[in-house]
Amino acid sequence: MKIFNDLADFANDEINALLQLANRLDRHPEPEALRGKVLSLLFMSPSLRTLASFQAAMIRLGGGSFVISPEMSIHGLETRPGIVMDGAAAEHIREAVPVIASYGDAIGIRAFAERKSLAADMAETDFFAMTDLIDTPWINMESAMNHPCQNLADWKTLDDLQVPANGGKFVLSWAYHSKALPLAVPASTLYMAARRGMDVTVLRPDGFALPDAIMDKARQAAAANGGSVLESTDRVEAMQGAHIIYAKSWSSTAAYGDKLGDLALRNELEHWCVDEPWFGNAREDCRFMHCLPVRRGVVVSEPVLDGPRSVVIHEARNRMLAQMAVLYQMLGAGA
Amino acid sequence: MKIFNDLADFANDEINALLQLANRLDRHPEPEALRGKVLSLLFMSPSLRTLASFQAAMIRLGGGSFVISPEMSIHGLETRPGIVMDGAAAEHIREAVPVIASYGDAIGIRAFAERKSLAADMAETDFFAMTDLIDTPWINMESAMNHPCQNLADWKTLDDLQVPANGGKFVLSWAYHSKALPLAVPASTLYMAARRGMDVTVLRPDGFALPDAIMDKARQAAAANGGSVLESTDRVEAMQGAHIIYAKSWSSTAAYGDKLGDLALRNELEHWCVDEPWFGNAREDCRFMHCLPVRRGVVVSEPVLDGPRSVVIHEARNRMLAQMAVLYQMLGAGA
Amino acid sequence: MKIFNDLADFANDEINALLQLANRLDRHPEPEALRGKVLSLLFMSPSLRTLASFQAAMIRLGGGSFVISPEMSIHGLETRPGIVMDGAAAEHIREAVPVIASYGDAIGIRAFAERKSLAADMAETDFFAMTDLIDTPWINMESAMNHPCQNLADWKTLDDLQVPANGGKFVLSWAYHSKALPLAVPASTLYMAARRGMDVTVLRPDGFALPDAIMDKARQAAAANGGSVLESTDRVEAMQGAHIIYAKSWSSTAAYGDKLGDLALRNELEHWCVDEPWFGNAREDCRFMHCLPVRRGVVVSEPVLDGPRSVVIHEARNRMLAQMAVLYQMLGAGA
Repeated sequence: MKIFNDLADFANDEINALLQLANRLDRHPEPEALRGKVLSLLFMSPSLRTLASFQAAMIRLGGGSFVISPEMSIHGLETRPGIVMDGAAAEHIREAVPVIASYGDAIGIRAFAERKSLAADMAETDFFAMTDLIDTPWINMESAMNHPCQNLADWKTLDDLQVPANGGKFVLSWAYHSKALPLAVPASTLYMAARRGMDVTVLRPDGFALPDAIMDKARQAAAANGGSVLESTDRVEAMQGAHIIYAKSWSSTAAYGDKLGDLALRNELEHWCVDEPWFGNAREDCRFMHCLPVRRGVVVSEPVLDGPRSVVIHEARNRMLAQMAVLYQMLGAGA
Repeated sequence: MKIFNDLADFANDEINALLQLANRLDRHPEPEALRGKVLSLLFMSPSLRTLASFQAAMIRLGGGSFVISPEMSIHGLETRPGIVMDGAAAEHIREAVPVIASYGDAIGIRAFAERKSLAADMAETDFFAMTDLIDTPWINMESAMNHPCQNLADWKTLDDLQVPANGGKFVLSWAYHSKALPLAVPASTLYMAARRGMDVTVLRPDGFALPDAIMDKARQAAAANGGSVLESTDRVEAMQGAHIIYAKSWSSTAAYGDKLGDLALRNELEHWCVDEPWFGNAREDCRFMHCLPVRRGVVVSEPVLDGPRSVVIHEARNRMLAQMAVLYQMLGAGA
Repeated sequence: MKIFNDLADFANDEINALLQLANRLDRHPEPEALRGKVLSLLFMSPSLRTLASFQAAMIRLGGGSFVISPEMSIHGLETRPGIVMDGAAAEHIREAVPVIASYGDAIGIRAFAERKSLAADMAETDFFAMTDLIDTPWINMESAMNHPCQNLADWKTLDDLQVPANGGKFVLSWAYHSKALPLAVPASTLYMAARRGMDVTVLRPDGFALPDAIMDKARQAAAANGGSVLESTDRVEAMQGAHIIYAKSWSSTAAYGDKLGDLALRNELEHWCVDEPWFGNAREDCRFMHCLPVRRGVVVSEPVLDGPRSVVIHEARNRMLAQMAVLYQMLGAGA
């Protein structure tokens, strides 16, 4: 494997192989697999789980990693192309990215969406400007529209919980948050659930529909794998018979990059906080998923988050296992 | 070993086994002992020695570690229970701690005392709120009232220096510092010296007596091990025949959590700076110990700190060796 | 090897052995060479390449490292000698440095020039105040006047490019930058190229001559190795037949430590930005070297930096390989 950027780049049997490998490495550690191998980790955006789980993954496989973030350079990293660098930043990503990559056998990069232009974010303009500079294998650690490590971990979690692929009902629900957050998790989670063949409903208020291209990609994946994709603004309808509610706040797409417009739309949506009454017509064992970090009492109520429905810690641990599988295939003996 | 929180949790032969193991690992490295093992390190409070020595310890044993501190999450980690998270912090320790723990085979946690309520700090309310969330083995890297890694390292230092256990005189002395510092080191150091069977004197000004429960715990440990515990405000009396002076500044317990009250008490105590005249009636080879960091010319004079009495670097290196022993017993083949 | 501080400390065959070892370790990894070995990394000044490449180097050799910078201590590290520490910093380098060193088998230290007094910086007063506290082997990761890891990497780059040693023409050119930067790279790069036996020209404006002692050291090295050292303010003359232009901005030595005086001298020198016309009478395959970070459009034009002349990424990768060779000789089986 040279690039891990999007589940859509992999065939079903490749995804299954990754999931099985993640399970195997959990049960049967291979602390010699990546002896002397180095993973470069570049975080243009903040991180806790990704930061910790990639480092842990490399150690468990016998290798190691190093972490670079912009503040480690002198006055940060410049990202704008074609600029005369007479401002604060002393280094440009055009040097920093290939240099950092050159020290590793592979590199992971995280860079959140700029959220000025939906078209630019959908095209992953900024992210590919960085990955185009790299000769080594690379991993998307969350870009404007993708978070494939989260997606693989969540797929594994659904398997671990024995949630049916075909026939399993997955509700991806918008949730309240005071800020406009990126689309990477909802967009790529929708694809993951559809690709797994589930019956997916995107539950969201008006103004927060996911972009057409995202919906279309998911619909095609669902169609090819025995699933379906619906949209709804009606919580009761959406939750009917659900196996899973996957909550996430995201930016308004109707007012993308427009702070005040987004605020006007999210204003008075504070009741979009997942709480026990939401589960009234769901399956009794309906689970609550979230990629974390999550705001308690804002996105989800404490009783739900601390109760038996929540599998968020399980999901987070699966990040490490999923990434171990990716790294093993990317850097291991069979790579 | 599942938990390393307090020397009081261990029998004498267990402590001796740790000390012998620390010596053995220093003389005979075992770089395969913890192959592929991961130590999670969570620092809610700042660190230099603990940060460096735990990372070094894991590498020497063939494993590795990763470090998380609150600023690595988006806008920090929320610690208050039951709160609606509509403020700055995007993540709560109730998720962060179990997630971070889930990536490691063990986790070390540091969280200094809040120093608002002596009762809450004595009960380790905040610290246990975190450790209660953990399934893996864990290590106290300094809590409100404990610093067992420092204690084990200091015990080893006393052994290295061949300071007698029974009959050795250990003066734990308050020292001046412009700020009110936590009780973790003095409280747990007192216990360590008493538990080692030494004759311990707590030398401190009025208003700075250690809490009764701390004193009682130490007295019982001393009684069971052939030692004794005294208190004094008189330097000349306290230092008589001392093998060791262990200096540390700490908060006033008479005005705990009361900044102005504490300041009023410590005002005009600047002469509590350990200096050569303090050693007039001590043993000629009386040593100066301190856990570091230490303020030169404030807590201790430069000539003492740079002179032959000082063993502070030796103590600090023993942090690594003591922790290697703990990690070996916690994560090694015999664990 | 106990100390890696200056290429001048090594015989020619020792330097050649390091260069050959760097090549060998690139082609034939030895992930068991430094099993369980620890490198302490102390950064008193910021870093990206050095930070990343040393961590990667240790992992590739089977060991590991940890990183400490002043902000990891409480309120930073005090460096001033003989001070009463009643200010912000809670720890002095007199404790921090030996403690950090004691956790490693070797330590790397970076501390940029203070740039108040040229004499003090030339004497490496601050740097040796730290290294004098260390018992373990140590590596200069850039001091006031030296950057031997960069020098060894650049030497390797020149070899990789098959630039002739004797007869090769190396132009070390001052370049514009809005700030007064340290002399470490130009001073030690000049020595490296002269020591390699090249014909070196220092191209720089009036007021930016390198110190006499630096020039003399380079002239002697050139004389002993079949090379030469010239100075010029005339770009056309300097670039005649050049194999290499190595660009770097540095402080005015005529106004060293004098911000306004330096500014007056560098004012109107913005045309000292390496651009394609500079290469008019150079060899057609003349290469552009720079240690990075580099300001695009300020120190060098984008077309040169992005074009085929630039070998800056190659140089940066060689940092890792050169350092692997140093670490191998310092900590490996034959050390």
